[in-house]
Amino acid sequence: MIEQPSDALSRMAKGEGIATTGPLTRAACEALDAADPLAGWRARFVLPNGVIYLDGNSLGPLPKATEALIQDVVRRQWGEDLITSWNRHGWVDLPQRLGAKIARLIGAAPHEVVVADSTSVNLFKLLAAALGLRPARCVVVSERSNFPTDLYVAQGLGDLLGERMELRLVASEELEAALDEHTALLMLTHVDYRTGRLHDMARLTRAAHDVGALALWDLAHSAGAVPVELNAAGADLAVGCGYKYLNGGPGAPAFLFVAARWHEQVRQPITGWFGHAQPFAFELAYRPAPGIARFLAGTPPILSLMALEAGVDVLLQVDQRALRQKAITLTDAFIRLVDERCAGFGLTVASPRAGSERGAQVALRHPEGYAIVQALIARSVIGDFRAPDLLRFGFAPLYVRFVDVWDAVDALRVVMTEGIWDQPAFKQRAAVT
Amino acid sequence: MIEQPSDALSRMAKGEGIATTGPLTRAACEALDAADPLAGWRARFVLPNGVIYLDGNSLGPLPKATEALIQDVVRRQWGEDLITSWNRHGWVDLPQRLGAKIARLIGAAPHEVVVADSTSVNLFKLLAAALGLRPARCVVVSERSNFPTDLYVAQGLGDLLGERMELRLVASEELEAALDEHTALLMLTHVDYRTGRLHDMARLTRAAHDVGALALWDLAHSAGAVPVELNAAGADLAVGCGYKYLNGGPGAPAFLFVAARWHEQVRQPITGWFGHAQPFAFELAYRPAPGIARFLAGTPPILSLMALEAGVDVLLQVDQRALRQKAITLTDAFIRLVDERCAGFGLTVASPRAGSERGAQVALRHPEGYAIVQALIARSVIGDFRAPDLLRFGFAPLYVRFVDVWDAVDALRVVMTEGIWDQPAFKQRAAVT
Repeated sequence: MIEQPSDALSRMAKGEGIATTGPLTRAACEALDAADPLAGWRARFVLPNGVIYLDGNSLGPLPKATEALIQDVVRRQWGEDLITSWNRHGWVDLPQRLGAKIARLIGAAPHEVVVADSTSVNLFKLLAAALGLRPARCVVVSERSNFPTDLYVAQGLGDLLGERMELRLVASEELEAALDEHTALLMLTHVDYRTGRLHDMARLTRAAHDVGALALWDLAHSAGAVPVELNAAGADLAVGCGYKYLNGGPGAPAFLFVAARWHEQVRQPITGWFGHAQPFAFELAYRPAPGIARFLAGTPPILSLMALEAGVDVLLQVDQRALRQKAITLTDAFIRLVDERCAGFGLTVASPRAGSERGAQVALRHPEGYAIVQALIARSVIGDFRAPDLLRFGFAPLYVRFVDVWDAVDALRVVMTEGIWDQPAFKQRAAVT
Repeated sequence: MIEQPSDALSRMAKGEGIATTGPLTRAACEALDAADPLAGWRARFVLPNGVIYLDGNSLGPLPKATEALIQDVVRRQWGEDLITSWNRHGWVDLPQRLGAKIARLIGAAPHEVVVADSTSVNLFKLLAAALGLRPARCVVVSERSNFPTDLYVAQGLGDLLGERMELRLVASEELEAALDEHTALLMLTHVDYRTGRLHDMARLTRAAHDVGALALWDLAHSAGAVPVELNAAGADLAVGCGYKYLNGGPGAPAFLFVAARWHEQVRQPITGWFGHAQPFAFELAYRPAPGIARFLAGTPPILSLMALEAGVDVLLQVDQRALRQKAITLTDAFIRLVDERCAGFGLTVASPRAGSERGAQVALRHPEGYAIVQALIARSVIGDFRAPDLLRFGFAPLYVRFVDVWDAVDALRVVMTEGIWDQPAFKQRAAVT
């Protein structure tokens, strides 16, 4: 592997008097933590003692504020105030209120985002909405390496619509060439769920617009980890996940974005009462609510929404550019340490080496990836495995430290040096990997 | 109004030595409570002092066990065990495990029910699934008085499918005549959300089957309140709500049922990863999971599912027939007391007077219904209003007492006698009614 310490780590290291040549030491990582302007945010999270948690890109940890908030929602709002809480505690417009907060993290206007359902369900709505906005076209272009559920959802809608929709999957480098006058929509995930590779949202959105298509972005691995500027990029539609970098809890509701210019004419097919112009008028015919609220369907899940709000509230207090800078530096340090300390074990870096081209995660490739990840988990270094051969590590800059990076690579080195992964217990697949 | 104490109240009253002729007294209600075999269950719920809660058909109250359970899920499972909880605490199959529990309340087999998404989203899936099972037919028959969101969802799917689906709405008494060889599906709500009128599920399902159609039942106002025997009735599909009589919390996830005989061939269109045969294999193509799991879409909302499980666990300990008996007696008592104590105020009973023909709720009709409900709420009697003129009261037999019935009618009598409702403050509409 080529030694290639990034500009970000070099700059940060220089500022701290850390040698940019020669091995990165644990002491240097401690110095980086001591100088980290974001270091204080770690205390806002529950992080079990001795655990190095590099899986916040799969399930964000518990913000300390969440527990008390949920207790209040359960005991006082639900328990004491019961049905009156829909008005008294603003439950009824929580999906929009929380959407407006998330909008600030993704470069959207407050009325362009709403929280509802799961990413899959929201994607279904937006795919159908996009086809409705481009009725003379039927092709949805995406990349073969997109997150499978995005492709599954598109396949499901395609099966339902028959000839009115065609899903065209291509390799990442063929995306622009695949766009043509039949393309209704370019559907992409901003940060690749495996490699962390970051798409150029503005350029690809322009490419879609150039052929008269719309662009839909899945922000599952971006929101809260990477600065997102939906409106600056001209994006039309987006979905995103609440339980990763937004720290909303397991299975937290998802969000969706629709650019304001489409609000008047856009329609979505799952027309439940919360998307009606007057849900409590109990009219016979569906009339879409004005604006983004028409993307709501059923009754919003209040406990889950409140937990998500607590997670988002933490992020809103933090400078997003500082987060980005730290994420690049953390991942740079990880790659450099793997290069320096884990050479010769057959591990390769599957993520882009240039910090500007990747999100807050790094994937390593190894044929025994599954067992190695399990062996690391047994040593309290929590990453995850993505089939067929990827070890995936998330470096959420809100709470991951530079010493965590050092200690994680040290554990990896021990696991590889001593062949610890090579045990039946570590090779036995669990339901969730 | 005709005095017509039902058989159930008569029997119960006779057993307690209560006069079945002449006015029902508060002392008699106290005697009924004292003899109520279900009286002890009330202590399992948080019910604010002085509040008479007759809105459990809109939002069930907080079971006391829920608070500690949610705290454990948040603090220990999410906070301490983090991502490993998907396996360690069985998060990954919670939708199926909880579905199997709900199955016991609705006369289904354990593997025929799953908890997911909202009632609206589930209805969308099942409507599309039904049309897929009857590809040569396009008509969905329902009644004009069905819960509007059910009709909205059908309209939304119809708009998406164009000529492949037609929604035919008729009056309740015309349902059977409306079924013919073009009918793909009869879609009905078991207990009417306004009047509480109970459909004969077995008869109507047979009528649908007689023309070769399927039958889909919305159990929102039945599950946990009325004995439901889906398989005995031959039902094909069903959806239901978690936040009413199942006491799962505001916006709790919903459930859906698909009769086992359809499992192999049925498909649904929102094909997210949790409905895939191997979600963590990250295959390119969607392959439906075997059985009911294919009706899952996105990542399940764990906090909300756990809260719902706590609510369902209470119900599973109670004899459903005793619940039904008490619900009929409570609603009989309410109707009798309204007849006896609120005559001459222009209130009429909108619900069936025969206990066997209604669910656990009673609706009264009055042109000033909205203001009257608000005046009652101001006196801590919580019912709700359903446009245009219905005062709706739920009598969840797990925690509503006979003295609550007496006191509620007494409050209604005072509100009507003194014209207390006739104030601007009570006429101002809130967002949620």
